Amino acid sequence: MRNYLALNHIFRALADPTGRHIVELLCDGDASVTFIAGPLPLSLATVTRRVQALEKGGLIRTHKIGRVRTCWLDPQALELLDQWVAQQRGRWERNQSRE
Amino acid sequence: MRNYLALNHIFRALADPTGRHIVELLCDGDASVTFIAGPLPLSLATVTRRVQALEKGGLIRTHKIGRVRTCWLDPQALELLDQWVAQQRGRWERNQSRE
Repeated sequence: MRNYLALNHIFRALADPTGRHIVELLCDGDASVTFIAGPLPLSLATVTRRVQALEKGGLIRTHKIGRVRTCWLDPQALELLDQWVAQQRGRWERNQSRE
Repeated sequence: MRNYLALNHIFRALADPTGRHIVELLCDGDASVTFIAGPLPLSLATVTRRVQALEKGGLIRTHKIGRVRTCWLDPQALELLDQWVAQQRGRWERNQSRE
């Protein structure tokens, strides 16, 4: 997947506060969709859609065994995001120092 | 604006490739909407909508004099984004080192 398209999906998935919450949670370790949904005031179907959006964005990976879908973070997407932000901040700072 | 809501708007505005292109361009200096739209294969109305989304997200600021709307980057939104990404990467790395 080209970075350009990847960034569209990454930003879109993280525009949703539940999407960000899931990423924050998975930074601490793997979790099942049921565990993620547990304390949230959302249906399991809604949480599953958010999980799918994050997976499409390459932010997380999932694997289903029986009825349990386990999710874990793929750090490469956060790295890509970090690179984009760092590039823009670098550009802006270089431009400021020229003025 | 609370960071939580700000991040929703920031991520949403940057999920659009034109939105990211405008931010990248403004990192190099201020520009008018007409100048931004010039080389893009989009109508001025579409570019204006992207500019408005970026302004709502706090990523840029604009000011209109006569018929010319000038846009410039507000670095605080990129800083907020950077902080969120750094926090998650830090959390993830601390978790990995515990395993």
